[in-house]
Amino acid sequence: MAQTFDLTAYLDRYRQEVETALDAYLPMGYPPKIYEAMRYSLLAGGKRLRPILVLASCELCGGVPQTAMPTACAVEMIHTMSLIHDDLPAMDNDDYRRGKLTNHKVYGEDIAILAGDGLLAYAFELIAARTEAPPDRVVKVIELLARSVSAAGLVGGQVVDLEMEGNPEATEAMLDYIHQHKTAALLEASVLAGAIVAGAGAEELELLRQYSQNIGLAFQIIDDILDITSTQAELGKSVGKDEKAQKLTYPKLWGIEVSQSKAQKLAAEAQQILQRFNDRAIPLQALADYIVARTN
Amino acid sequence: MAQTFDLTAYLDRYRQEVETALDAYLPMGYPPKIYEAMRYSLLAGGKRLRPILVLASCELCGGVPQTAMPTACAVEMIHTMSLIHDDLPAMDNDDYRRGKLTNHKVYGEDIAILAGDGLLAYAFELIAARTEAPPDRVVKVIELLARSVSAAGLVGGQVVDLEMEGNPEATEAMLDYIHQHKTAALLEASVLAGAIVAGAGAEELELLRQYSQNIGLAFQIIDDILDITSTQAELGKSVGKDEKAQKLTYPKLWGIEVSQSKAQKLAAEAQQILQRFNDRAIPLQALADYIVARTN
Repeated sequence: MAQTFDLTAYLDRYRQEVETALDAYLPMGYPPKIYEAMRYSLLAGGKRLRPILVLASCELCGGVPQTAMPTACAVEMIHTMSLIHDDLPAMDNDDYRRGKLTNHKVYGEDIAILAGDGLLAYAFELIAARTEAPPDRVVKVIELLARSVSAAGLVGGQVVDLEMEGNPEATEAMLDYIHQHKTAALLEASVLAGAIVAGAGAEELELLRQYSQNIGLAFQIIDDILDITSTQAELGKSVGKDEKAQKLTYPKLWGIEVSQSKAQKLAAEAQQILQRFNDRAIPLQALADYIVARTN
Repeated sequence: MAQTFDLTAYLDRYRQEVETALDAYLPMGYPPKIYEAMRYSLLAGGKRLRPILVLASCELCGGVPQTAMPTACAVEMIHTMSLIHDDLPAMDNDDYRRGKLTNHKVYGEDIAILAGDGLLAYAFELIAARTEAPPDRVVKVIELLARSVSAAGLVGGQVVDLEMEGNPEATEAMLDYIHQHKTAALLEASVLAGAIVAGAGAEELELLRQYSQNIGLAFQIIDDILDITSTQAELGKSVGKDEKAQKLTYPKLWGIEVSQSKAQKLAAEAQQILQRFNDRAIPLQALADYIVARTN
């Protein structure tokens, strides 16, 4: 089976299902402007890596992936919220995202702030209202995802990220803090949430936590590298941002080559951790490679 | 009992319990700046009307109020988030709130946006992690509260509110939409959430919904009147905002006296609706009077 697994087809299929579900879960409503703004950023494409991790992890733990679809889409709404708010003039002040003008450039800052708030709130409504799983699992998923975006997660990571701009005394410890909270926390929550919906036990959750921490760090290292080596056309967002903001990054710390090989080593370890799941681990193992090999 | 019920003592006791719980649920953490910013606005005082409604409603339905404390504090976090974001320069651009400088005036716009995001996310984490009630009730509470703040609630109300500024074609229907979503939705969710934690049935919830809609509208009418008749020292926030923003309000539509008597009539109806609960309704009935008689 390892030889015959077609990751591209797997990603395409799940990505398509996620796109359809996102569109269906968040139809237009009144007042139209806010629904347009939320849908503009939510349906702007993207790899849909986080929702696919939710679905793949649910499947790995023996669940029906469709049961985790509200959670998968909620994770993408949370991720989109964080992008909309990070791009605001008061934060990173970015004009492009996913190859399109950022939310506030199209709808104005007020609506962009509210679109993010609306997506964040709706993410929790969606999980609570639509997850067909025992309610104790639903409560656990909500607790986990909420923590991953709070001051103990994404928000905290973004605060330290803002503090590190142009800070000549930035340390590797601060860099680790940022990656763990701004990037890895939501990736880890995605993997664990899918497993919880499926009813995974403590041992499975622990293995998936280790896997997530590896791919989370690998993901961030590659992100930092792409900010240096890629073009805006390839990434769909501004490049060279870290250099311009005088931010410490992994390639700045270790160089590009060492960074690249560390990312590969992390992915290989992540694959090793999932051995115990046998063939069922193949999609998540392939996803670890994909995260390191990606060019956008 | 009706003669001996001391509303002031009742409010003071619950307000004190809420203050203590808010402080305990959101201690300082790393990065300190974001926790300081969240705590600055969350612990800035205020009437704590929404959390008290949660606790009183839980008690009315036979629950132990302390069981609803995480929900009560979560509602106050959501309310605080909406105030922080509404006060931003891109929105209402206010300098004072609850008698203190607004969050962004102290911490900057970036941190204020993130403090709001952090409070919103943490509200759901708190309910999920700390509510000692059957998980199906916890899921229902989260769904209800999330909807009350999403584009179908608070966020939608704020969007129409922004659209109505200086709009000479604003109608009473738009005004009703704003009050129902920006103010009444979270008040209603507070009352219903407390009841759900207590395990209330459909009939009780329906009565409480009618009660909430009445006090929600009464609350908004009084808010509009106070914006005209009060001073900044009394309210702790800017006054005369509606006039300056050329916004349609209830007193502008009906005049101050008629508005005042409509608010009183709504409160009397709200009290009537709760008759069926007998003496247990006394605190919520007294709260209806309090909402109309308040001077800040």
